[in-house]
Amino acid sequence: MIPSEILQQIVVKTPSKIVLFVIDGLGGLPHSETGKTELETARTPNLDHLAALSLCGSSVPISLGITPGSGPAHLALFGYDPIQYDIGRGVLSALGVGFPLEPSDVAARINFATVDENGLVTDRRAGRISSEVNRELCALLRRKIQIADVQLFLETERGHRAAVIFRGDGLSDKLTDSDPQLTGVPPLEVQPLSPEGRKTATIVNEFIAAARAALKNHHPANAVLLRGFAKRPSLPLFSERYKLSAAAIATYPMYKGLARLVGIEVLPCGDTLAEEIKTLQDNFAKYDFFYVHVKAADTAGEDGDFERKVRVLEEIDSYIPALLELKPDVLVVTGDHSTPSALRGHSWHAVPFLLYSRWALPDGVVEFGERALLNGGLGRFLAVEAMPLMLAHALKLIKYGA
Amino acid sequence: MIPSEILQQIVVKTPSKIVLFVIDGLGGLPHSETGKTELETARTPNLDHLAALSLCGSSVPISLGITPGSGPAHLALFGYDPIQYDIGRGVLSALGVGFPLEPSDVAARINFATVDENGLVTDRRAGRISSEVNRELCALLRRKIQIADVQLFLETERGHRAAVIFRGDGLSDKLTDSDPQLTGVPPLEVQPLSPEGRKTATIVNEFIAAARAALKNHHPANAVLLRGFAKRPSLPLFSERYKLSAAAIATYPMYKGLARLVGIEVLPCGDTLAEEIKTLQDNFAKYDFFYVHVKAADTAGEDGDFERKVRVLEEIDSYIPALLELKPDVLVVTGDHSTPSALRGHSWHAVPFLLYSRWALPDGVVEFGERALLNGGLGRFLAVEAMPLMLAHALKLIKYGA
Repeated sequence: MIPSEILQQIVVKTPSKIVLFVIDGLGGLPHSETGKTELETARTPNLDHLAALSLCGSSVPISLGITPGSGPAHLALFGYDPIQYDIGRGVLSALGVGFPLEPSDVAARINFATVDENGLVTDRRAGRISSEVNRELCALLRRKIQIADVQLFLETERGHRAAVIFRGDGLSDKLTDSDPQLTGVPPLEVQPLSPEGRKTATIVNEFIAAARAALKNHHPANAVLLRGFAKRPSLPLFSERYKLSAAAIATYPMYKGLARLVGIEVLPCGDTLAEEIKTLQDNFAKYDFFYVHVKAADTAGEDGDFERKVRVLEEIDSYIPALLELKPDVLVVTGDHSTPSALRGHSWHAVPFLLYSRWALPDGVVEFGERALLNGGLGRFLAVEAMPLMLAHALKLIKYGA
Repeated sequence: MIPSEILQQIVVKTPSKIVLFVIDGLGGLPHSETGKTELETARTPNLDHLAALSLCGSSVPISLGITPGSGPAHLALFGYDPIQYDIGRGVLSALGVGFPLEPSDVAARINFATVDENGLVTDRRAGRISSEVNRELCALLRRKIQIADVQLFLETERGHRAAVIFRGDGLSDKLTDSDPQLTGVPPLEVQPLSPEGRKTATIVNEFIAAARAALKNHHPANAVLLRGFAKRPSLPLFSERYKLSAAAIATYPMYKGLARLVGIEVLPCGDTLAEEIKTLQDNFAKYDFFYVHVKAADTAGEDGDFERKVRVLEEIDSYIPALLELKPDVLVVTGDHSTPSALRGHSWHAVPFLLYSRWALPDGVVEFGERALLNGGLGRFLAVEAMPLMLAHALKLIKYGA
């Protein structure tokens, strides 16, 4: 990958437009009966036709064999080294619920959990309480807990999961977890990892004790376990790094949050793919880079629903002509990672990728499917190289060296 | 890429011979009517036959999406990390005119330019004066400018471009440019980037003022803009790095200069491809590595002349049997970068590559063309890995580790 200081020297502002269309969880694995993946099964005539005109390949989100979370997978697609830039779990939890993190906030993931009369953890997920119970408990904690000089925010994620954000002067995220990741042991005291973390450790332990008191009669959710203390990472701004005026179109808070992390402006948008495309059309004149995120393929994959994932991909395919009508100079269709229905979760498998541009060399691939794309001109490449490729094909990179 | 200190431990001197045949600007893009690239259009029976006997692939000069100048592209082919070793523009200008740079010289690119009565730049290229006018102006500046303790060299490049070389004790290249890269503003004062640059900045500013005085009545070329102050980078010697006795055969000063930068001996040679091949034949017994550079494909590409590039490639093809008659142990045919006629300039596209050797595994590719080569055994790989591949197939690398 080209060092960012060199990219900075060769990137130029031009009117050309790039659309990065991300189908979350795009890649899959074969159905046991047909031997075909979700994407290979889906009827996708528009994507197949587009592949025939495009530079194709398979992108590796992080490195071979590594299954990424949404954070690192998106950082890579945005051209930020996902190993160098670490987004802590607390920050991802806060982004996931759409919480507007300030740079000095410290966020952590909460598990509602069960402890016995001896204070030993018996269930790290509190019997998987419902999101509704979770919301009631968060409201209770908000009402009952006051900590001097610190503002507290409690936000339900889903099931037993919530986010907590500590806001105040001089807080640090250099802390150990309270979640022991085991049952039969007590929650851990939160310890500072460096001297600057001492004050925050005291505050957090006070919060944990107060939560335990407040939850006393709420078995099975009678304790909280905290992990992944983190501040918002300081990432170079997308607009400065690439001299792009960039907009994000997404329906889920997590992806809006990831876009905001790198300074991509998030456009207001409804909840459906049709509304996302409409938002793209309405704003196409105003920006020169669009990140469009489509969630449903990942959700179907996580649910293990092969057939639904196939249908989602077919629906997405039907919007490809609308994308092309906008005449973007570069259109990339890919995923952030694979989510095979057979695995019911994110996976390490390479991700289908196509780059359509007047300056791309079509490579003979005529089908948008995991195996057809293996013969593409890009072969297998790291997702973090997608941004330089998009910029190059939009003629936004001048020569390196004379 | 293998670290150079490890390569150093495993490279051995043997009598085997390697020919690196570089077709400048080799790769291209499809013709809008036929859908075939220049190389795919050209009738190249000898290269096709050679491909069938060779290990094939597509080389990426720097990294995906990056368009290289000739300097970094050649460093990569010579096995030097083109990011680690930076060749400044001034040095490339000096090399381009065949100027024998000494290690302490500071070189810069000059633009002859136009300034108005208020000293504001109105044309950074002085109305694109001819090379002939440029030569007269360089002669004038040589005659008129004297700077104490510094020897000055002025060399015409082409059109409005020239090179200036400052020779003297204690000169530094840690300087800002005088070229503002904009019109409507005055040329910039050259500033030292570190204390050691102060003396040189004074000298350079004195030169610029003297040039302005000398050019007063030579509108539109009534000023000079300087940029890319640089000294010759200190590169490990090719002969020591690879234990090779290496020779370069090239017709353009730039490529002879690049060879000299890494210590490759430049053989005297005429201006035609026939003379280059004759030089190779005449010297084949005396060296064990030959870098042969052919310029015309790049020039045709830069001129946007698809048909001429096709004819050049067909001419080159006719010399392949002569290369094979020499029975090199390894013959590589590749380019330093792509120059698609459609783009009229260097590009980021991967570059056709074949390696012919008794010890290469032929991979089923039977055509020397951008897309046929995608299925080659090397796939897509970084150009900086070509040297270890050549050395290995010439049996010049022993086992790494026991």
